Amino acid sequence: DVTKDVDESLIEKFLSEVDNIQIQENLRELTKVPHMATTKGDEQTVQLMLKRWQDPETGLDKAWREEYLVYLSFPDPKNPNKVTVVNQSDIPYAAYSPAGHPKGKLVYANQGKPSDYQLLNQKVDLRGTIAITRYGGAGRGAKAINAAPYGVIGVLVYTDPLDINDGLMSDTNETYPHSWYLPPSGVERGSFNGQYGDMLTPYLAAKDDTYRIPVENITGIPPIPIQPIGYEDAYILICALGGEAAPESWQGAFNCTYNFGGPGFKPTSAFADSDVKLDIFNSGSLKNSSNVMGVIRGSVEPDRYVIYGNHRDSWVHGAIDPSSGTSVMLELTRVLGRMVKQGKWRPRRSIIFGSWGAEEFGLIGSAEYTEQYFAKLSERTVAYINVDIAVFANATLRASGMPSVQDVIFTAAKQVAAPGLDSTSVYDNWIRYSNRTSPNNGIIPKLGFLTGAGSDYAAFVHYLGITSMDISYTYDRSKTNARIYPAYHTAYDTFEYASKFIDPGFLSHQAIARTAGNVLIRLADSLVLPLKCSDYAETLDEYLNTAVSLYENQLKDREISMEPLKHAVASFRSAAAHLDHVIRTSDLRNETPLQVRKINDQLMLLDRAFLDPLAFPDKYAYRHVIWASSSAGKATFPGLADAYANAELSNDSQDWEKVHYHLSVLSQAIEGAAQTLQDVI
Amino acid sequence: DVTKDVDESLIEKFLSEVDNIQIQENLRELTKVPHMATTKGDEQTVQLMLKRWQDPETGLDKAWREEYLVYLSFPDPKNPNKVTVVNQSDIPYAAYSPAGHPKGKLVYANQGKPSDYQLLNQKVDLRGTIAITRYGGAGRGAKAINAAPYGVIGVLVYTDPLDINDGLMSDTNETYPHSWYLPPSGVERGSFNGQYGDMLTPYLAAKDDTYRIPVENITGIPPIPIQPIGYEDAYILICALGGEAAPESWQGAFNCTYNFGGPGFKPTSAFADSDVKLDIFNSGSLKNSSNVMGVIRGSVEPDRYVIYGNHRDSWVHGAIDPSSGTSVMLELTRVLGRMVKQGKWRPRRSIIFGSWGAEEFGLIGSAEYTEQYFAKLSERTVAYINVDIAVFANATLRASGMPSVQDVIFTAAKQVAAPGLDSTSVYDNWIRYSNRTSPNNGIIPKLGFLTGAGSDYAAFVHYLGITSMDISYTYDRSKTNARIYPAYHTAYDTFEYASKFIDPGFLSHQAIARTAGNVLIRLADSLVLPLKCSDYAETLDEYLNTAVSLYENQLKDREISMEPLKHAVASFRSAAAHLDHVIRTSDLRNETPLQVRKINDQLMLLDRAFLDPLAFPDKYAYRHVIWASSSAGKATFPGLADAYANAELSNDSQDWEKVHYHLSVLSQAIEGAAQTLQDVI
Ligand SMILES: [Ca+2]
Ligand SMILES: [Ca+2]
Ligand SMILES: [Zn+2]
Ligand SMILES: [Zn+2]
Ligand SMILES: [Zn+2]
Ligand SMILES: [Zn+2]
Repeated sequence: DVTKDVDESLIEKFLSEVDNIQIQENLRELTKVPHMATTKGDEQTVQLMLKRWQDPETGLDKAWREEYLVYLSFPDPKNPNKVTVVNQSDIPYAAYSPAGHPKGKLVYANQGKPSDYQLLNQKVDLRGTIAITRYGGAGRGAKAINAAPYGVIGVLVYTDPLDINDGLMSDTNETYPHSWYLPPSGVERGSFNGQYGDMLTPYLAAKDDTYRIPVENITGIPPIPIQPIGYEDAYILICALGGEAAPESWQGAFNCTYNFGGPGFKPTSAFADSDVKLDIFNSGSLKNSSNVMGVIRGSVEPDRYVIYGNHRDSWVHGAIDPSSGTSVMLELTRVLGRMVKQGKWRPRRSIIFGSWGAEEFGLIGSAEYTEQYFAKLSERTVAYINVDIAVFANATLRASGMPSVQDVIFTAAKQVAAPGLDSTSVYDNWIRYSNRTSPNNGIIPKLGFLTGAGSDYAAFVHYLGITSMDISYTYDRSKTNARIYPAYHTAYDTFEYASKFIDPGFLSHQAIARTAGNVLIRLADSLVLPLKCSDYAETLDEYLNTAVSLYENQLKDREISMEPLKHAVASFRSAAAHLDHVIRTSDLRNETPLQVRKINDQLMLLDRAFLDPLAFPDKYAYRHVIWASSSAGKATFPGLADAYANAELSNDSQDWEKVHYHLSVLSQAIEGAAQTLQDVI
Repeated sequence: DVTKDVDESLIEKFLSEVDNIQIQENLRELTKVPHMATTKGDEQTVQLMLKRWQDPETGLDKAWREEYLVYLSFPDPKNPNKVTVVNQSDIPYAAYSPAGHPKGKLVYANQGKPSDYQLLNQKVDLRGTIAITRYGGAGRGAKAINAAPYGVIGVLVYTDPLDINDGLMSDTNETYPHSWYLPPSGVERGSFNGQYGDMLTPYLAAKDDTYRIPVENITGIPPIPIQPIGYEDAYILICALGGEAAPESWQGAFNCTYNFGGPGFKPTSAFADSDVKLDIFNSGSLKNSSNVMGVIRGSVEPDRYVIYGNHRDSWVHGAIDPSSGTSVMLELTRVLGRMVKQGKWRPRRSIIFGSWGAEEFGLIGSAEYTEQYFAKLSERTVAYINVDIAVFANATLRASGMPSVQDVIFTAAKQVAAPGLDSTSVYDNWIRYSNRTSPNNGIIPKLGFLTGAGSDYAAFVHYLGITSMDISYTYDRSKTNARIYPAYHTAYDTFEYASKFIDPGFLSHQAIARTAGNVLIRLADSLVLPLKCSDYAETLDEYLNTAVSLYENQLKDREISMEPLKHAVASFRSAAAHLDHVIRTSDLRNETPLQVRKINDQLMLLDRAFLDPLAFPDKYAYRHVIWASSSAGKATFPGLADAYANAELSNDSQDWEKVHYHLSVLSQAIEGAAQTLQDVI
């Protein structure tokens, strides 16, 4: 039936069948053992996913494993990494930190930002020192990359209780297992590589015979050893540091003054003039990492894909990250799979589920998948839904995505009850916590943007230009300043932690499963894709206004006109308004299927039109001119903001030329996108 | 009617209405005045196209002008270029040659290939010399680019009667107006730039405010002045040259021995020890160049485009190049336009006609068009048909294109009578002149490939990955060795020349209009696109076999495996066979329109899957891994052949790594393309 559309009663049925206890039991099973990428525990989760997705009663049409040979980094189990002066209680590491045995005087470098090292270098001769830094402010690897030019030879990184525990630290009753706060021995792991995808196979799927760049050509990883430690160790080190007191903004929650370091310790301290020595035994190795894929074939448009994914690998037990999301995904596939197996439902479009491998090392599984299936996925994918950490906390929905997905998320969120608040919808609860005034829509919840590479949406957004979203339940920011949930990436992220402190009763998990599942069904079943291009236009308008107010006068002085960009955004705005009007006023159910498809293709391919493989020559796999990452920190077009900031800093005429160049790239992309929304001939 | 398909009676009607006399009169009008790009004559042809395409009786649905501001190169009318020692009869020039006044001893450098200069340099000290070269063997600009490293300060280029006149030259009765051969005073012009598209706006449409690279950053143009001359002048110069006799293969048709040059002339010659001096006054300038666009809106799938194009600009009157093609296009639009205006026909898909500007300077109009409308054209274009020079000569059809278009060209060619041969089809005549044995199809006419950038198909093939073809009528190669028709790019390419010597009666023009028009209608009207992917597989198979036999053993020694490439081609072959089988055995007229569309999208997008914007980092706007230009001269994958040749030459391990890298790029692209042909989920 070519006019198949969303069936609201089916959605109600779906919502009622999503079961919080099932999600809880999924999580219990997924977190039984640590399942770091490519370890035995990871393979157990592969088998679990396959078993579920191949279940004859509640499985999908088809499920299989896709394997890649990728470059990971591990500590040496026979030679645990050590930080001498202190002794660590578990054996964490910084993935992609080089091995090495640097020994030197300790200094405190705040968050390891360029400005931090710049200031510190004015106070202390950094040559030959070991810098201790706290998480936050700069990327993990950047803390070492920024340090090396000053002659720093090793870096430590820890999680300050100020940033993760709302300052609590001293009394053990204050931390897990007595609260959700991180105990002193917890160590936050992570990938210290700044690029996404397997580092040895840029733009190529990492198959056995694929060309690999030499390991020494890898860029963006720490040039000097770096090691994470817990704050119990950091406390001892920092409070013993000598030298001048660091500025107010560098102070953390320890009950001592954070000094810069003499370099080294106070003569009065127990360590006196000791060096700190790092013994790092990490090494890189090629490992087989698996994605587990499952599909439900579409009935009317099998060649249109809605993709839903999450990573499967964790640092340790990974209850919240990522197993909360995986538990939700398994509950979705159970409910939907059963409807399919019972013959009660088959989506209009195909649904592809992806359980990605090796995300924690740099979004590797999802990136390799997009490299391998680039053409097919570009041509056919309607949208990508990412649910990684499903529940950070129980306060409110958090959603990010391209502006065109706002409407379908709102529709879904209005149909789901907020956890613990029977008569309030997820939408009504959300708008209380985070809202804005939209010219098109009035006061609405605030949708975030996907400008970085924080989870597996990155390759879909930045490399493929696929309309994407990321959905979770999160904090009441008035109640905590924690950078993220305190057990993040530590050995304390366990089933007990999740079920006792993050989401007792799993009602927030259930709300996410219902909301994300509702969005998924709508994207898969709607006759006309529920993507609203006029909401996209609203964001471009805001970006333009910001750009004009920030840059226009100064650019005029240099005879660089912003008129082409204004024209492009105006073209987009009017094309989007027109297409929206056509959709609203047409009786599309009575149009030919090809007329409907014509409109759906315009909506599906909209984000593809914003891709330019040459727009960001220095950013690996960033091609989307609207959402690329930016360091300028302005709410406007990222390449323009960065080019402008760069030119303003150097005041070099070639850098101003690059601003002009990027303006042309951007204007052409937006005009091109507008063209795709206009009447087709 | 969603099942609309090709109507054979309509095709018959179309064929009968294509009128040779109309084509002749089109040509007469188009060639009234010289119409070099952006000149007054060019504007007259713009007006003519617009008038025809906006004609209420025989015009298209809509026609308009698209303007670009592009960087061209012109001589100075007040200071005609001069070559002292000889005096020229008209004022031709080499577009994009720098201005300059080099003066030096003359040498003869054959075709100006790298090997030519290498040999010559062993005989003569080339520093400070002027080199005279003949057309052929190397690109125009390359003749100067290759010379400069040896210290050559200026280059002359002429057309040797051996290469253009089958050796004839001396008796004026032998040449035009007494035959089709080039008179001694004819000078072949051309663009001496090696890249396509406007040189100042790479990858960006050349609009008024578009960022332009500095002129000094242009690459691929002659670094030293170069000037074309006629062979009457070249004769005087070459036959006076001193020095050793050049090798046999360097000798042309002049009745003297071609010497290398002393350097300079024989002491016994009239010029004795004279220098040759070039006075070149060319300069670059920004000019407005127009494409004229016209459309017929599709009835069922308006968002699917068949594009038919040719350039409009010429070097002088340009009767054959390009006006023969333009005359054919105008006849097509007259016949099709009238059927549309009379309500007798409307194609299933939309047809876009393009009359491109400034092709002669480097395919500029078509390239800018594809840059501006990249997203829309990539998403929706079914095929591009190029008919530039419609008729080189009257012997046989010549067609080149992606292998998937072979079948529809054959079908069309079988329905058209060969000019002057009433009972023989264009197809049956073609197979006599040029054939091959195909594993899939037996003995068939030989379709060429579009590996270079010889006409406006380049941007469609290499930049957009759109399935394309180029169609013309051409020589009996047993009767002439002429490099191309003798008046090519000279002032003798006039209506009189065309109507007297190229195609008296215009029956070959008519045959091209019928054949190309038939292909166009089939692409626009067929329910299932007439593109055959198994013919594509056949070519990939042949390319693979050649690659394996040329490279496999040596690559094995270096531990580079060709297995991924073999696997990729095998995947493609079986996916293509399967899809062909599905098409052949399905009753698609009774399937849902979305089922048909699914297959048509697989066929339409097949070439897009072969694009990789990073496959050829050194080749501007070449992205198609199968059809990119290659200098290795092997009938196999171009990037592989070039990388291999390069590695073999240098035997540098990094160059062998590049072979491995390109093998991975290629294998992934072919696997990706195969994926798009397989069952969609
Ligand atoms: Ca890769
Ligand atoms: Ca351009
Ligand atoms: Zn995660
Ligand atoms: Zn994580
Ligand atoms: Zn031409
Ligand atoms: Zn030409």
